[in-house]
Amino acid sequence: MPDPLASFHAVIPAGGSGTRLWPLSRAARPKFLLDLDGSGRSLIQQTFDRLNDLIPAERIHVVTGARHADAIREQLPELSSLFVEPSARDSMPAIGLAAAVIDATDPGAIIGSFAADHVIDDQVSFAEAIGQAVAVARSGLVTTIGITPTGPSTGFGYIESGDRLDVDGAGSARAVRSFVEKPDAATAARYVSGGAHSWNAGMFVTRTDVLLNHLGRLQPGLRAGLGTIAAAWPSPERQSVLDATWPSLTTIAIDHAIAEPVALEGGMAVVPGEFRWDDAGDFAALGDIGAVSSPETIWVDGSGLALSEDGTAIAVVGLDDVIVVRTSDAVLVVDRDSAQQVKDVVAELARRGRDDLL
Amino acid sequence: MPDPLASFHAVIPAGGSGTRLWPLSRAARPKFLLDLDGSGRSLIQQTFDRLNDLIPAERIHVVTGARHADAIREQLPELSSLFVEPSARDSMPAIGLAAAVIDATDPGAIIGSFAADHVIDDQVSFAEAIGQAVAVARSGLVTTIGITPTGPSTGFGYIESGDRLDVDGAGSARAVRSFVEKPDAATAARYVSGGAHSWNAGMFVTRTDVLLNHLGRLQPGLRAGLGTIAAAWPSPERQSVLDATWPSLTTIAIDHAIAEPVALEGGMAVVPGEFRWDDAGDFAALGDIGAVSSPETIWVDGSGLALSEDGTAIAVVGLDDVIVVRTSDAVLVVDRDSAQQVKDVVAELARRGRDDLL
Repeated sequence: MPDPLASFHAVIPAGGSGTRLWPLSRAARPKFLLDLDGSGRSLIQQTFDRLNDLIPAERIHVVTGARHADAIREQLPELSSLFVEPSARDSMPAIGLAAAVIDATDPGAIIGSFAADHVIDDQVSFAEAIGQAVAVARSGLVTTIGITPTGPSTGFGYIESGDRLDVDGAGSARAVRSFVEKPDAATAARYVSGGAHSWNAGMFVTRTDVLLNHLGRLQPGLRAGLGTIAAAWPSPERQSVLDATWPSLTTIAIDHAIAEPVALEGGMAVVPGEFRWDDAGDFAALGDIGAVSSPETIWVDGSGLALSEDGTAIAVVGLDDVIVVRTSDAVLVVDRDSAQQVKDVVAELARRGRDDLL
Repeated sequence: MPDPLASFHAVIPAGGSGTRLWPLSRAARPKFLLDLDGSGRSLIQQTFDRLNDLIPAERIHVVTGARHADAIREQLPELSSLFVEPSARDSMPAIGLAAAVIDATDPGAIIGSFAADHVIDDQVSFAEAIGQAVAVARSGLVTTIGITPTGPSTGFGYIESGDRLDVDGAGSARAVRSFVEKPDAATAARYVSGGAHSWNAGMFVTRTDVLLNHLGRLQPGLRAGLGTIAAAWPSPERQSVLDATWPSLTTIAIDHAIAEPVALEGGMAVVPGEFRWDDAGDFAALGDIGAVSSPETIWVDGSGLALSEDGTAIAVVGLDDVIVVRTSDAVLVVDRDSAQQVKDVVAELARRGRDDLL
């Protein structure tokens, strides 16, 4: 019996600094490089581990900016394929670059994209979802993994599923009816009780040729540029062609370039992800993913999460659900319900020219 | 016309670490050594300046523990009289030691005691109150300065005044009827509206012989010990007699040893202090005395006081009336209304054996 994950490659776009996790996350030390749950492994290391449990390291590819290449090589010594983008162009050029290069050496390969900075805690269910997604992708559909909601979150986008598909090895696959933006609370509650909506975790699984064909129709300029780069990839001109071509590529997310339009055409499928998943997007989420307060914390008539990066003491008096974060150069104090607003601190620091703190 | 402040000496007992101002104040760096209002002068320096504006430095005396003697000499190079206590015995032995030594060299001198760590902001009114208090003290009464309340504080003790006295140069002097402990809110409101109550700021002005006579009646053992020390003071045996005698002195505050019992006997007077005064007792008080947030602070939908001792950034998001203090080794976050509970943090640190943070 053939390996169901034969020719399956994982692509990890590693970008975004995570401004809502300042002062832990910085431009030079983005969220994916941090160990946010106290496990001893950074988020990108956990992402790599999760995938390497399923496929060999040679079929795991990371795409990142020049700024973080060295840190990633250091954190992932087993990684053999690192694509370094000359500049940030959002997720479609990043994933498209990997897809075009993989397609040239492994035609008909299947790729799956997985954010470098998300948290998943059930490897068995994750593997089950990947197996189904690869089976569906092999049939020619672009496939996403829809996370079964644990509550009516307003912090995530949702995937609305439609008719059941009939794919061998993917008994739970359904067509995607549409992708919907982060809803309000009432809408989220309706989604969850209705049962047709799952969370969009940005996991897309597709045959490389299928993806490149869609791109050729929907973003022909981007497809052509990626083709030019992929053609030069095995040659000594790789870097010069990459540098010359990359700036012309359209800056666009894979959601807008592929997922949303292809879903409307009936070309997207969804399989359920029955595992616990979180995008670790802000400090309110950190408690949910297992972060615990530093042992040097003292609570007097108070509660919340206190993280002391340098091991110094933190004392909280008379405040509930407060998050306190201390680094060597900054302190953040935020009410749990205002965790999303932490990005405004980063904006204000930028306005004041405090690049040393960004 | 003779100088009304001739033979007036100021005694500054400098003790108490100020546990409610942790982590700024520490056992090794007590509140009186700190510049809490951003003036550039510590509280004991401000206390010295205020008194030195009225009398020469030679008539200003500080009484402190061995642990803080060097820091005080450094902060007050003009100070010529520093009494170093072998151990802490509360305010009566401290003030009594200075009184006994001063009385031996300047009989009939008048001393006034002023805490090293309080804040006063109107020098003219302060001088006016001192002038009246000295005039009353000269007549043989132990005299206190009662601060005219600016509101119904429950954080201070109160002085209940009685009949008007007839003393030249002290038109506002009254007898003290009694001293009362920190009241509840309703009682405080009644005190303030009634007009007979003022705040007890621990300022006592008295002739040395009057004080020592009261002590001889009320605390004869303590009086005898102080006499032994004072007799040896000019001799080479000063230190050995001090070390031998001091441990036998009763540990007691001047309020309990003198002020309260003498008031009941009709021997205490009060003159009004019409200046702004604060004991800078906790972080809630710091805003009132002029402390301002560090310029490196960013407020996003928040308000309060943020002090960064090491100049690092502090960001507060979604919290009002919060106080954040960062030192090199700790962070405190406290709701303004819970400022008194900061002492519980210090107690917990002691319980955990974190002497490095006390």
